[in-house]
Amino acid sequence: MAIGPIRTAIKVDFEKPATAQAGFHNRWHPDIPFAAWAKPGEAFHVECFDWTGGQVKNDDSADDILDLKLDGVHVLSGPIGIEGAEPGDVLVVEIQDIQPFASQPWGYTGVLDKAAGPSLLDNHFPDALKAIWDFDGIFATSRHIPHVKFPGLIHPGILGTMPSPELLAKWTERETELYDHHVEIKSELMVARLPMEEGVYAGQSITPEAFAKVAKEGARTIPPREHGGNADIKNLSRGSKAYLPVFVKGAGLSVGDLHFSQGDGEISFCGAIEMAGVITFKCSIIKNGVKDFAMNTPMFLPGPVEAHYGPSRYLTFEGISVDEDGKQHFLDAHVAFKGACLQLIDYFKQFGYSGEQIYLLLSAAPVQAHIASIVDIPNSCTTIGIPADIFDFDIMPREGKIVPLDMGSCAYLSKK
Amino acid sequence: MAIGPIRTAIKVDFEKPATAQAGFHNRWHPDIPFAAWAKPGEAFHVECFDWTGGQVKNDDSADDILDLKLDGVHVLSGPIGIEGAEPGDVLVVEIQDIQPFASQPWGYTGVLDKAAGPSLLDNHFPDALKAIWDFDGIFATSRHIPHVKFPGLIHPGILGTMPSPELLAKWTERETELYDHHVEIKSELMVARLPMEEGVYAGQSITPEAFAKVAKEGARTIPPREHGGNADIKNLSRGSKAYLPVFVKGAGLSVGDLHFSQGDGEISFCGAIEMAGVITFKCSIIKNGVKDFAMNTPMFLPGPVEAHYGPSRYLTFEGISVDEDGKQHFLDAHVAFKGACLQLIDYFKQFGYSGEQIYLLLSAAPVQAHIASIVDIPNSCTTIGIPADIFDFDIMPREGKIVPLDMGSCAYLSKK
Amino acid sequence: MAIGPIRTAIKVDFEKPATAQAGFHNRWHPDIPFAAWAKPGEAFHVECFDWTGGQVKNDDSADDILDLKLDGVHVLSGPIGIEGAEPGDVLVVEIQDIQPFASQPWGYTGVLDKAAGPSLLDNHFPDALKAIWDFDGIFATSRHIPHVKFPGLIHPGILGTMPSPELLAKWTERETELYDHHVEIKSELMVARLPMEEGVYAGQSITPEAFAKVAKEGARTIPPREHGGNADIKNLSRGSKAYLPVFVKGAGLSVGDLHFSQGDGEISFCGAIEMAGVITFKCSIIKNGVKDFAMNTPMFLPGPVEAHYGPSRYLTFEGISVDEDGKQHFLDAHVAFKGACLQLIDYFKQFGYSGEQIYLLLSAAPVQAHIASIVDIPNSCTTIGIPADIFDFDIMPREGKIVPLDMGSCAYLSKK
Amino acid sequence: MAIGPIRTAIKVDFEKPATAQAGFHNRWHPDIPFAAWAKPGEAFHVECFDWTGGQVKNDDSADDILDLKLDGVHVLSGPIGIEGAEPGDVLVVEIQDIQPFASQPWGYTGVLDKAAGPSLLDNHFPDALKAIWDFDGIFATSRHIPHVKFPGLIHPGILGTMPSPELLAKWTERETELYDHHVEIKSELMVARLPMEEGVYAGQSITPEAFAKVAKEGARTIPPREHGGNADIKNLSRGSKAYLPVFVKGAGLSVGDLHFSQGDGEISFCGAIEMAGVITFKCSIIKNGVKDFAMNTPMFLPGPVEAHYGPSRYLTFEGISVDEDGKQHFLDAHVAFKGACLQLIDYFKQFGYSGEQIYLLLSAAPVQAHIASIVDIPNSCTTIGIPADIFDFDIMPREGKIVPLDMGSCAYLSKK
Repeated sequence: MAIGPIRTAIKVDFEKPATAQAGFHNRWHPDIPFAAWAKPGEAFHVECFDWTGGQVKNDDSADDILDLKLDGVHVLSGPIGIEGAEPGDVLVVEIQDIQPFASQPWGYTGVLDKAAGPSLLDNHFPDALKAIWDFDGIFATSRHIPHVKFPGLIHPGILGTMPSPELLAKWTERETELYDHHVEIKSELMVARLPMEEGVYAGQSITPEAFAKVAKEGARTIPPREHGGNADIKNLSRGSKAYLPVFVKGAGLSVGDLHFSQGDGEISFCGAIEMAGVITFKCSIIKNGVKDFAMNTPMFLPGPVEAHYGPSRYLTFEGISVDEDGKQHFLDAHVAFKGACLQLIDYFKQFGYSGEQIYLLLSAAPVQAHIASIVDIPNSCTTIGIPADIFDFDIMPREGKIVPLDMGSCAYLSKK
Repeated sequence: MAIGPIRTAIKVDFEKPATAQAGFHNRWHPDIPFAAWAKPGEAFHVECFDWTGGQVKNDDSADDILDLKLDGVHVLSGPIGIEGAEPGDVLVVEIQDIQPFASQPWGYTGVLDKAAGPSLLDNHFPDALKAIWDFDGIFATSRHIPHVKFPGLIHPGILGTMPSPELLAKWTERETELYDHHVEIKSELMVARLPMEEGVYAGQSITPEAFAKVAKEGARTIPPREHGGNADIKNLSRGSKAYLPVFVKGAGLSVGDLHFSQGDGEISFCGAIEMAGVITFKCSIIKNGVKDFAMNTPMFLPGPVEAHYGPSRYLTFEGISVDEDGKQHFLDAHVAFKGACLQLIDYFKQFGYSGEQIYLLLSAAPVQAHIASIVDIPNSCTTIGIPADIFDFDIMPREGKIVPLDMGSCAYLSKK
Repeated sequence: MAIGPIRTAIKVDFEKPATAQAGFHNRWHPDIPFAAWAKPGEAFHVECFDWTGGQVKNDDSADDILDLKLDGVHVLSGPIGIEGAEPGDVLVVEIQDIQPFASQPWGYTGVLDKAAGPSLLDNHFPDALKAIWDFDGIFATSRHIPHVKFPGLIHPGILGTMPSPELLAKWTERETELYDHHVEIKSELMVARLPMEEGVYAGQSITPEAFAKVAKEGARTIPPREHGGNADIKNLSRGSKAYLPVFVKGAGLSVGDLHFSQGDGEISFCGAIEMAGVITFKCSIIKNGVKDFAMNTPMFLPGPVEAHYGPSRYLTFEGISVDEDGKQHFLDAHVAFKGACLQLIDYFKQFGYSGEQIYLLLSAAPVQAHIASIVDIPNSCTTIGIPADIFDFDIMPREGKIVPLDMGSCAYLSKK
Repeated sequence: MAIGPIRTAIKVDFEKPATAQAGFHNRWHPDIPFAAWAKPGEAFHVECFDWTGGQVKNDDSADDILDLKLDGVHVLSGPIGIEGAEPGDVLVVEIQDIQPFASQPWGYTGVLDKAAGPSLLDNHFPDALKAIWDFDGIFATSRHIPHVKFPGLIHPGILGTMPSPELLAKWTERETELYDHHVEIKSELMVARLPMEEGVYAGQSITPEAFAKVAKEGARTIPPREHGGNADIKNLSRGSKAYLPVFVKGAGLSVGDLHFSQGDGEISFCGAIEMAGVITFKCSIIKNGVKDFAMNTPMFLPGPVEAHYGPSRYLTFEGISVDEDGKQHFLDAHVAFKGACLQLIDYFKQFGYSGEQIYLLLSAAPVQAHIASIVDIPNSCTTIGIPADIFDFDIMPREGKIVPLDMGSCAYLSKK
């Protein structure tokens, strides 16, 4: 009756590119063939590349972040068919464990070049930046952001089921509408990434016809949507359960973009501590759950195991819906959150950090971003709290001049 | 050497209207005379009306919510001068305690009529609603929302210092600009409440000249701003420290809008459990702190004492930047938060609650609203988590039909 | 339908001795008349003296601790009859709130003279000691133990139901047997306090016959027993539920010995922060619960609201079953706990505290005492953890000499 | 600058007995040669057998527990020399990670036969028992104790440094004295395990002379002592730091007896969920720390990451110093703890469990055992709290008959 070691449904081979291996894809589309199957109640491992498929190196330059090829991201592991799952069911995905590879005990936080797409503070930090994090047991430390150490709350940035053709069409339609509107008003903002044939990968067993369809129609993996996707929820860690709606027979579960740790908001787009690793799933099915739970977007239960800091150890900053130019916005939580982050950055610069270091840190460390109020016209209030206990010096506001420490430097572009 | 009972700096007399008593005001303006003074290090009580000055009754009709007179809100206690505080200093306000009055062991959550101003889901719930909460020791229960019980995390919705004339002018300018823009585009949205002479109250000792000035220029108390104000931060409870910038000599601390409990977002505008009560302060001053901490908006440290639910007891819902009509917005956390709330409401209706009851509950109960990701174009992901342990039945998603309970009703308009 | 202010079932008058007032008693006996009645589901306040009935002063001498008259302790409020409770039922006591009196915002920790009875470290600290604590909002601070501040987890040291005659007889028999054995072996230890006529108080309405019986037979209130009693459980605070067996009709609930805070073990006998105050109860009855739950001793559920420190903020010390003289005991958790406390005291002396100060602090602060192992012959391992965040200096073990602070002094006997 | 995969200082080969491999030992003695060395600041893995060296099988009979050979336990990995450590220093051992072997995703809880040595309730459960636990990701479940699931707080039961000859002599002297006393009084209790030549193993590189000395003098590994040892502290998990006194040059760190989870007290002697696995250390040295910290026994800091249950989710039972026969003991925490455990067991039998199942469960699940009071003569009060959230049914005491579930059976002796 003993349970043996559990099988690995999808394996990574770091010697070959992801696009030369079975078990990976980088678009959402119902015609991508399932790479593996699992039974309800069966535990299985899924190995994952980091989101870029290995484009970032453990070095002291941000050049690789600048040079990132984004047409082929995110590299996802899957799709995995779950036996018995049918449209209208809810797939319950228990995350039994997540670990980095022992052979790659490190990850990175990046800030992309502004031209590559928006990050929260791209007007303030337009150039590519990088910090490397070493996995020191359950903790992360960084030679690029010294005097900080915190345990990882490891989670997948992306977890989702395959859309039905109808849902996929709805996604494309609404995102195209937004995109077209911005083209029309001559906005320079990158507001959405629409289906695009460059860089598409849909596994090894796809037919040319299906591939052509996926390439043309496949939804990009950047945003979270009704099926899950790139939700970047930092608490979806070991022991969590995600409840995902099922849109196709077998569900088609895919996963990727693993994070060793992430702050709420993942504020620099390549935020979090990005890593390759192994995730262990056990799935079950709630028949007709979508209707019974009136489900439109996923639900989840975080796991019971987290790092705990006392509530009074979170130094917390406020932001309101007034932007850096003093302009008043209407209940804009995005602007308010930006303001809270900028306030925090200014505060921490007094200790000797560069703004770039704190921007990277906020993306990676277990900071809590709350919507405090969203009805007090014209200002929303959002807060961002950072745990004092992740620093090895005293960050509390006190009487008397702060003596800055030597904080070294994060990784910049080599040509700067 | 014994410390005696502490003094009450501002007292409430429920037999008279707030506007006939010293110690209260309802605008932010540097010319409002200080109602009391306190020394750094001295503990003192401040009594507070509820935000409306007593307009809401403990009954089963929402008529009083419909009839709320808003020109005279919020009724604040203050301003209190803190000896030695000067512009550029940081005022450290320790909240030593907050209690409801023993004679008024109840509070209320309201949804305003849509015409009175925006609440998060006013398109869904346009009419006035109300729920009364009884303070059952440290817990709140409601005859209008049965099967729920939770401890209060009592806090002031409003805590702020008096603005300087320059800061006041900046507020009015930027809010007027927003207001004018909306008038120009013929928006029907109430986007900001500008200074207005009706209903102004500035204490008993003000000169007619000063009063005229306050009436004309005084900033409304609705939004949070750089001085604190109506931030509605649910964790600013017993044992917390707020760090507020000082803009005028003596700081001019005012407080009001006490909440027995509030959910993140305070999503219905008269959300939270509104109450009258007593707050106990102890203040200190950090000289030149505004510059030394690069402070633009307040900072705070929550208190160490909170209700704790295991992380895996928060059933959590996701929202993305797609609105109820299926329209795609760009990284809009407000839209995403709305989606998460609607999803939660739909789920809980399966248990027999009305949408109105859950809307009121979300405003009042200790729900956690997080910004999960704000860079994954075009969707933000926000989450809202509700603790299972505040219900006396099992709320977890499970296989099998849910059997709805008899959930009674919240308070509606009598004419409906 | 509004709920009004709640009634006070038992009132304290500080102008008169407890023994001249209705509502108090200091022995456990079924013939003590009930001082008040309450209905199931009804909230009511009960006012309490401190355990000594006011013998200790807010001053800087331990003389009053030395002079404590112990024959009349503990001063309990009650007994309160709960309508409908019958032997065999379980009385569910919800502690809705506990507060100190606003007029007495202080408490004390004492170490009794060794002759008055055992405290954990009486061989090390044989003389009477005292520390006064000021209630600084939700926090306690002490002029006698500086650099420490922590929120109170207020609780009743004593909460119990009245014993039946049979249970009372069983108590007396088994405690007398222990007492007699120690007399026989000429032990000098005070091992039990048997019924004693001096100092007995049983309320104002008792008949002379009943009084004589109570005086002769009434169980002393020192130990915890099957009915609850002096359990000194530090987590039985606001929002807790105690499940007490009922032995007499009406249950006969009594309460006293309120503590603003206590460390696990209450290691100095007059440990904890002793105070007078008001407790608010709401009771319900589970019929036949004693049998259905196979209940022999009370059960309880702590409240949801506590101070939370991160687990890694507890500096923890170990003790084993080897005493100060190096003698090996067999799996003795008492000896092991003593060792852990002594180890902690020695450590903190390096920071400038006296052993007396830390002994008092351990009795009062929220320290956690765990039984780690109790089967590893011949040693038990017990641990005591103290939260770093209650100190305003860094207590962590680090490389480099500790620089002691000026720690002043606790209160000693004046004649010393 | 990249950090590579970390080395494994001691390896387990499951194909051979521990006693045929380098890197293991089962006595404490300064003459056992170091099996490996590590530098301060260097991370390294240490592989460990389960405490018995593999004597227990994943099956449904307790026969292997009955047949356990105890002369060769505990199988420890080590000793490991830490460069630069000298007597009087404090060795800071950071536990970076602990994992079961992927190839052995299971552990066991056993109750030894009473003749093999005391367990807390051996009078109630004298025969050998066993439960197998499967590691379901971060959770443990058992076919022998259904309806229970909880995350592991993995920790080493044993972690210690090598004693000096003087310390070793002191141990033997005091334990022999206890032993001899019990022989003298003709006690049948197994009170201590003295040095014994049978079963001794001291690694592969020891000289015959040294081996003879170790065999004769080596301290058994059963109890915790001043160097650490078998402390069985359930919170010494990932991210913890242990501060151990150094008695010999190089410290001589050894580790073993890994537990996937343990309840406070480890009440059945082979309690906890025993497992083989890999622990990752990083050590540093505080010079002269023993004197500077006045250290007599180890200190530690738990890690920041634990399962968290709300405080009000711990159903808690009390015990007093009265034994099962009604006999009164004097402030005996051991007796009180036993009473609390028996009370809990009786309560849970109502749900359909056998007493044996709960006895095993209490040893393995994250139960909290506190010393509530230890000065209230003649009774100590100890409490044991069990988290409701580890059960998949409602364990709370409520009105109405409990309907027992089918709870299957734990593993018994086959001949029963």
